[in-house]
Amino acid sequence: MTANTLVHSKLVCVALNDKSQLTALEGTFNEAPYKKPPTQPVLYYKPRNTWNVDGAEVEWAKDFDGSDVTAMAVGASLGVVIGRETCRVSQAEALDYVRGYTIVSDFSLPEENYFRPDIKGKCLDTSAPVGPEIVPADTIANPDALTVTIRVNEEQKSAFALADMQRSVAELISTISWIMTLQPGEIIAVGFAGDRVPVAQGDRVEATIEGVGTLTNTLGGA
Amino acid sequence: MTANTLVHSKLVCVALNDKSQLTALEGTFNEAPYKKPPTQPVLYYKPRNTWNVDGAEVEWAKDFDGSDVTAMAVGASLGVVIGRETCRVSQAEALDYVRGYTIVSDFSLPEENYFRPDIKGKCLDTSAPVGPEIVPADTIANPDALTVTIRVNEEQKSAFALADMQRSVAELISTISWIMTLQPGEIIAVGFAGDRVPVAQGDRVEATIEGVGTLTNTLGGA
Repeated sequence: MTANTLVHSKLVCVALNDKSQLTALEGTFNEAPYKKPPTQPVLYYKPRNTWNVDGAEVEWAKDFDGSDVTAMAVGASLGVVIGRETCRVSQAEALDYVRGYTIVSDFSLPEENYFRPDIKGKCLDTSAPVGPEIVPADTIANPDALTVTIRVNEEQKSAFALADMQRSVAELISTISWIMTLQPGEIIAVGFAGDRVPVAQGDRVEATIEGVGTLTNTLGGA
Repeated sequence: MTANTLVHSKLVCVALNDKSQLTALEGTFNEAPYKKPPTQPVLYYKPRNTWNVDGAEVEWAKDFDGSDVTAMAVGASLGVVIGRETCRVSQAEALDYVRGYTIVSDFSLPEENYFRPDIKGKCLDTSAPVGPEIVPADTIANPDALTVTIRVNEEQKSAFALADMQRSVAELISTISWIMTLQPGEIIAVGFAGDRVPVAQGDRVEATIEGVGTLTNTLGGA
């Protein structure tokens, strides 16, 4: 557990916010039991035991028998840091409630399907580094114009433009504020691009957003 | 948001821990997409905005259009308060990590199905009162022998023996400690009985566990 985490009370993540991923899954969603795509943002939490910081090691996960898991993956997202109590705000005013922006990496077990919330795979200890810092909101003219890249051992593996998200940053803040009241310091990870990047023990992972910074972590277990 | 909540960092809830409910759902689980019942405990979180205390009002929920929702429901559970860092402990030693016991009421929107994690329905502001106090672990000889009752406006609506849970308190602590490290003060709600009790605006709800206490809350909106 890292003491100086940037997260103070809650880290909410948005799943399935990638237009191309939603399109690819359309057939699955139209079958039983859903029979239609999600009509609201799909949210999950990274609880306190997951919170981690820039430069720190991310533990390699263990199976229920104590052995190392065979595979892990990573996604990265813009992190929106809430500046004041946010309850049922409109999309037009949503960005006024933002204190600043940061980066969230989300290490997990590879996803098997979309039908069971994967608490074990998503809630691994130290699996949610946040950082390296919070840049003030007024330094980012348009958060939806940013691009998130992931490099593993200095090779670029993923680049995702927030313009390709199903829901904008302002729309997400507004909708989530109708579901739960957000408090200062709480962070929303607005979306991870479709396919997570596979990682191995000892890998060095860098998540970068221009103007926000680079969040660097190394996988344990090597 | 209540300042003096008994929850300090995390409130983890266990769904579908009722043997008779699992039996009733067996047909559904055996169909697509699951094709088998859950093999691990089904967990969800009640985040910070939900935490509440004994004696306080629980807000009546609002729909996305700002109107009052038409229905809410409540379940109640034994709350296990963790006493020290709990990481990958065995079932035999699990109860040694418990500081004490309390009661968790979980107010929510009525559940429509089991296929989509119902973040909106489960994460309503002030919907998770915890209390009235934490009774020391050594005053409860066998937590699995307790019974949880719910009374609404002084009429008993539900009584559930923890002996009828699929997984014992010790088994849950052990299994969850393999999924995520638990810290002192974190609370596990070990299970809510099958059918939630419908509640209306202004209702007074009492959740009682003998030897642990009575947690009393009133629904707002009346």
